[in-house]
Amino acid sequence: MKIGLAQINTKVGDFSGNAAKIKSACTELANSGAELAVFPECAISGYPLGDLVFCGGFVEEAQRVLAVLAESVSIPAVLGCPRKVDGAIGYRNTAYLINEGSAFPICDKMLLPNYGAVNDTRYFDSGNEFGVVKINGKIFGISICEDIWTVPASPSSRLYADRKLPLDYFSSLNNGGKRGLYALINLSASVFSTANDVVRKRGGLLCQVSKKVSAPLIWCNAVGGADGLVFAGGSGVFDCSGAPGAEKSKCLKKFEEDIEVVDLDGMSGYDGDSADFSGDGDLVKAIVLSIRDFVGKCGMKTALIGLSGGIDSALVAALACKALGAENVTGVSMPSEISSSHSIEDAKELAENLGMKFYMVPISELVKGANSALSKIFEGCSPDVTEENIQSRARGLLLMAVSNKFGGLVLTTGNKSECAVGYCTLYGDTCGAFAPISDLYKTEVYRLSRYINTEAGRVIIPQNTIDKPPSAELRPGQKDEDSLPPYDTLDAILRMYVDEFKSASEIAAAGYDSKLVEEVLKMVARAEYKHSQYPVGTKLSPVSFACDRHIPIAAKRVILF
Amino acid sequence: MKIGLAQINTKVGDFSGNAAKIKSACTELANSGAELAVFPECAISGYPLGDLVFCGGFVEEAQRVLAVLAESVSIPAVLGCPRKVDGAIGYRNTAYLINEGSAFPICDKMLLPNYGAVNDTRYFDSGNEFGVVKINGKIFGISICEDIWTVPASPSSRLYADRKLPLDYFSSLNNGGKRGLYALINLSASVFSTANDVVRKRGGLLCQVSKKVSAPLIWCNAVGGADGLVFAGGSGVFDCSGAPGAEKSKCLKKFEEDIEVVDLDGMSGYDGDSADFSGDGDLVKAIVLSIRDFVGKCGMKTALIGLSGGIDSALVAALACKALGAENVTGVSMPSEISSSHSIEDAKELAENLGMKFYMVPISELVKGANSALSKIFEGCSPDVTEENIQSRARGLLLMAVSNKFGGLVLTTGNKSECAVGYCTLYGDTCGAFAPISDLYKTEVYRLSRYINTEAGRVIIPQNTIDKPPSAELRPGQKDEDSLPPYDTLDAILRMYVDEFKSASEIAAAGYDSKLVEEVLKMVARAEYKHSQYPVGTKLSPVSFACDRHIPIAAKRVILF
Repeated sequence: MKIGLAQINTKVGDFSGNAAKIKSACTELANSGAELAVFPECAISGYPLGDLVFCGGFVEEAQRVLAVLAESVSIPAVLGCPRKVDGAIGYRNTAYLINEGSAFPICDKMLLPNYGAVNDTRYFDSGNEFGVVKINGKIFGISICEDIWTVPASPSSRLYADRKLPLDYFSSLNNGGKRGLYALINLSASVFSTANDVVRKRGGLLCQVSKKVSAPLIWCNAVGGADGLVFAGGSGVFDCSGAPGAEKSKCLKKFEEDIEVVDLDGMSGYDGDSADFSGDGDLVKAIVLSIRDFVGKCGMKTALIGLSGGIDSALVAALACKALGAENVTGVSMPSEISSSHSIEDAKELAENLGMKFYMVPISELVKGANSALSKIFEGCSPDVTEENIQSRARGLLLMAVSNKFGGLVLTTGNKSECAVGYCTLYGDTCGAFAPISDLYKTEVYRLSRYINTEAGRVIIPQNTIDKPPSAELRPGQKDEDSLPPYDTLDAILRMYVDEFKSASEIAAAGYDSKLVEEVLKMVARAEYKHSQYPVGTKLSPVSFACDRHIPIAAKRVILF
Repeated sequence: MKIGLAQINTKVGDFSGNAAKIKSACTELANSGAELAVFPECAISGYPLGDLVFCGGFVEEAQRVLAVLAESVSIPAVLGCPRKVDGAIGYRNTAYLINEGSAFPICDKMLLPNYGAVNDTRYFDSGNEFGVVKINGKIFGISICEDIWTVPASPSSRLYADRKLPLDYFSSLNNGGKRGLYALINLSASVFSTANDVVRKRGGLLCQVSKKVSAPLIWCNAVGGADGLVFAGGSGVFDCSGAPGAEKSKCLKKFEEDIEVVDLDGMSGYDGDSADFSGDGDLVKAIVLSIRDFVGKCGMKTALIGLSGGIDSALVAALACKALGAENVTGVSMPSEISSSHSIEDAKELAENLGMKFYMVPISELVKGANSALSKIFEGCSPDVTEENIQSRARGLLLMAVSNKFGGLVLTTGNKSECAVGYCTLYGDTCGAFAPISDLYKTEVYRLSRYINTEAGRVIIPQNTIDKPPSAELRPGQKDEDSLPPYDTLDAILRMYVDEFKSASEIAAAGYDSKLVEEVLKMVARAEYKHSQYPVGTKLSPVSFACDRHIPIAAKRVILF
């Protein structure tokens, strides 16, 4: 039987827009011979929905649009939509079969994630069983996302490894030698991160599920950005039900919409994009998709970036130009009297390399105005971090003013290392609606910057930007390493602490000076209130500050050895 | 038997500080004849813990401190502490009996809330049964917080009404006429809001539980602020096990630490503070407690407030002075050329009435500097909201500079009405670490301001501040009502939309113009990204922006009729 996979990029709350995509995909797939179309989890509503689920009329409207859609699709389709059902919470995350004018609820998601960046248990009651449905005389099992996750995963994804549903239910359909289950369908919206993407690889979770149920697995994953989350696509059909060595798969593209007809009876070998995580190229694609979707789904087209001449803003500018087109990205250089001449030149060169618009707005007059306003009450005080923050906040004020006047969504350029330890000025360089690299450590920022140049086959990010020692340039001669450990050390400590929840003594035992570990952990603790006001940003790692980490602010900071 | 209730204010993560409080309360209670001391949920660790639970060594250290504490308490005590147990997540929220050097886990919390502002299911596996323990020859039932919530609550508290545990377990202990259960103990950390506080009143939930189990209920609730959350205290013993009309209760104070010995066999009538919500006085106490604890638990003593002469900053200043003492609060007036003379006078009068420090830092030179920096790229553009935001951000910059130079935690003065519709400038008037009145609608701000004056028996908030029409004073002659509907209309619409999740058509059906409803709901939708960067603030209502509401930003705004 020919199955159509439609890996679509939905927008949260845009029921009619999403339904139009579904309808046109069904037509396209039918024209290519598909007898059944499969879409992601919550394809009508988008995912995750947050508290929109509770908003009066929201789920009802999704259902109304689903009913209208059911009347107009050209082939049967399996897709996700929330529904209202009596229960403790009253809503379910449901798989529907739409066909010949009707929408049948087949089953509700059972394993509701409540970890990392998602909280399905806040919004949905659990379903009770897998779905089984006959389409064109063939028996399909139906499941939603985590319901089939049976393989232990990395330690940082604490929860799901220990919750397993008995897939034997499906294999039992094959009792008596006669093949009962034709294929198992799984509707997903699986959050991308460098940690969990690997579980989906060819020999991994998806293949094991197919083996377990003795039938092909049809896995349709969402693609696109949803605030800080990225859905990576990479949907596919995985048939590992035969003899060892005879595994077959057909994969769709990653990080873009894709649509494909797979003949389940005519598969052979491995075909298409692998679902494996493939390093820096994937990280770049994830961030680019996430910028494009955040800006676009907010109803905007253009972005604005403060260019310091440093590596962080250079990388953000390069990624934003990939995402939105250079003609839609404007860089603003805001030099002070402390700024080195190369800062302005490096920023200018970057803008030229990218072909983006470039403004220069010096901050000195604004800083002078601030100092003069404060001169009376600051009389007799020596300069300290106050004067550094004034410069950073002057830049924030000017960048927001340019955004207010000309439009353009401000992208925050901070990285995960500086965000973690609070080496940033709230309402200064943290200004912005979206922070694309806030989940990349500084060492990763360097690596991806080099990758950008290598991939382009020419210099995009100026060599001097890559080579010079990082500096906030808020006082003459300042270097990041005056205040912070070298970034390779800092990042290694942060990774163990933030992403792996290791204790101070475990980090020290990995070979780091315990005094230094304590200092770093204290910096993170003092920065928690900054994290809480930081803009949302692309989640890439197991634990991003923007989407995953929830630490109380008014608390004693326990640094234990 | 004489039971000691110790309603203590714990600090998250401060194991040794919390343990010291517990030890000294045990001593005091023992000296007053108590044979058993009862403490709140998670008394050793504080609550809620957020992702600190996952941090390496955190729960182990809580356990270590618990073990040390067990060796030094003078009477048996029941108290809460998280523990590590095998399971999907691996942690439980547990009630312990400490006695004669040992700490016994009695039972784990079963009904784990995952709604509103709390997410226990992210952190803990559920327990399997209530606890029963014999102390001094008497049988006590042990339960944690929501495990005994058996009464349907308001519609906005979606979840818990439908989840009930069979308290029959306890009443069955009384089978055969012989009284088996002596009392049921409940350890709580119950989040205060105007909506759920009423369920605890005399005739409400707590009394019904006592009736159901045919024994007195000993309810020990936490007190204090934890980021935006307030625990209201109001612990007590409720004995409704006898004949109708013979109900008895003894309540502890609300909104402050309290410690009390209750002789279960010698109770009569109603004694002490009622646990009922008692209107504006409680709201004031809740905010004051929350400011004091946020500032104090962050390790600070002083606060800084931008004083506009308007009602919001005036109320925040009055509350902050109550919380921290006027000597620890500084007001900063930052007039522009647009500011009316009464703005400065009203601010000055307020500061005098309160006896707080007062600075004046005019913003005109800073604004001039900004305009001059932008003059080249803004050439030919007409003034718009940009110039208004520049003024607001200039004030943010100056206030943060004063905080950086002299210390003092900046309190944000925005109210719920303006936060909801985005009538505020991000990085301008939203600057600050804590927003005490961000969950009060503007009409409530007026009401509480009048209450403050009435309670004091003198003018604290100047009459002119209360009487004049509200204005942001960002352009000459500007009034809030130029951009917004009258506040009584706006607040009524917002309350239905935000707190009650009503749809646009339901709000219109309540008597509001549907065009106006649509406009207000669109303003809220456009402001979601501002909500996401707003500082944490005191939760008072069923749905606060700071603690409860999670709405996607890059989404289509569905306004349905």
